[in-house]
Amino acid sequence: MKLAVVLMSGGMDSTVCAAMMLDQGYTVAALHLNYGQRTQERETQAFRDVCDHFHISQRLEIDTQHLQVIGGSSLTDMDMDVAKADLDSDEIPTSYVPFRNANILAMATSWAEVLKADLITIGAVQEDGSGYPDCREEFFRAFEQTIRTGTALDKPLLISTPLLYMTKEEIVKTGIALGAPLHLTWSCYQNSAVACGECDSCALRLRGFERAGHKDPLPYS
Amino acid sequence: MKLAVVLMSGGMDSTVCAAMMLDQGYTVAALHLNYGQRTQERETQAFRDVCDHFHISQRLEIDTQHLQVIGGSSLTDMDMDVAKADLDSDEIPTSYVPFRNANILAMATSWAEVLKADLITIGAVQEDGSGYPDCREEFFRAFEQTIRTGTALDKPLLISTPLLYMTKEEIVKTGIALGAPLHLTWSCYQNSAVACGECDSCALRLRGFERAGHKDPLPYS
Repeated sequence: MKLAVVLMSGGMDSTVCAAMMLDQGYTVAALHLNYGQRTQERETQAFRDVCDHFHISQRLEIDTQHLQVIGGSSLTDMDMDVAKADLDSDEIPTSYVPFRNANILAMATSWAEVLKADLITIGAVQEDGSGYPDCREEFFRAFEQTIRTGTALDKPLLISTPLLYMTKEEIVKTGIALGAPLHLTWSCYQNSAVACGECDSCALRLRGFERAGHKDPLPYS
Repeated sequence: MKLAVVLMSGGMDSTVCAAMMLDQGYTVAALHLNYGQRTQERETQAFRDVCDHFHISQRLEIDTQHLQVIGGSSLTDMDMDVAKADLDSDEIPTSYVPFRNANILAMATSWAEVLKADLITIGAVQEDGSGYPDCREEFFRAFEQTIRTGTALDKPLLISTPLLYMTKEEIVKTGIALGAPLHLTWSCYQNSAVACGECDSCALRLRGFERAGHKDPLPYS
């Protein structure tokens, strides 16, 4: 039995990732991080609901405030406004948490080493166009080299990024085809009750559903 | 003015690192992590004392429990015994926290990106002989590549490891030559009041002082 540690935020992308890994026959160990993001509680609820749906028993929720303490991002700094989406902009948005994925992958690697997992799966999407440097192929390959040199493993621990070159439209279609519980997920950066529909994350999600020809099951304000 | 983020545990090695960076004309921003280690409070006290001594005003203490939650190490798992030192063994000791340095460097990089620092300095010592894979040159070079690919920086952010090829004897001598406050540092993995003298960390420190021809200013049980 092959084991994948899947990073699951409770959002649509990572839920589709989990569905893909399960579909490929992996046992999934689900890792969820609370790093002080604005919609933390709502995301954790979504994570638990999705894990219940998939009958994933091996779960770990980690609370860590360090990215919030370090600051510099509107995702974690409550004094910064979440910018409204500009999907055509080349600028790195204020929701960027410096080196966030490296922090997340470092935690995932520590857990994967303890579990002797085969893979770490992260639902990064390059097409988001948001310009996050730690969402690029070369970053993940560099991180794998860091794992190879920095762990005491008998077999290589790889990072899989099944969504990296998918569009949101393809992600929606894949999720629906695999029966992923998209109605249980949460993507909004701004609100916890009703999704705002205006932040980067909402805008990308809504456009993905629209292009896929499906209606997003979540309510929007 | 060049800025170095120096990882400072409150131990001897990282204190000597800070002394070396200050001696080289860097402004030092001091980063201390509480990750659930057994002697956390004692180490934090040592960190503050050392920073006060050096008049370092830019300090960040981060509490993160994730390495403890993940477990697998006698440094953070209170149900595991801290092994007595066997400095001639090739085995990875039970005090190994999986991928610890990667987690630490990821946090340091996030802060360094916010501060626009020039360097991250970490007091890793390969000679410790404890076989930690994330204390090797190739690991640090791989991590630099991860930084290059995963951050949005205008200039390269490098990792300096000034102690990597030094013996403990040389570290003691360097610290004394630079006037580093070794009497304020704490190295013991086991105890917080009087150092045990028997854990890996104590054994290496004591041997270093002995070979340097100096007496360790700390009391031992």
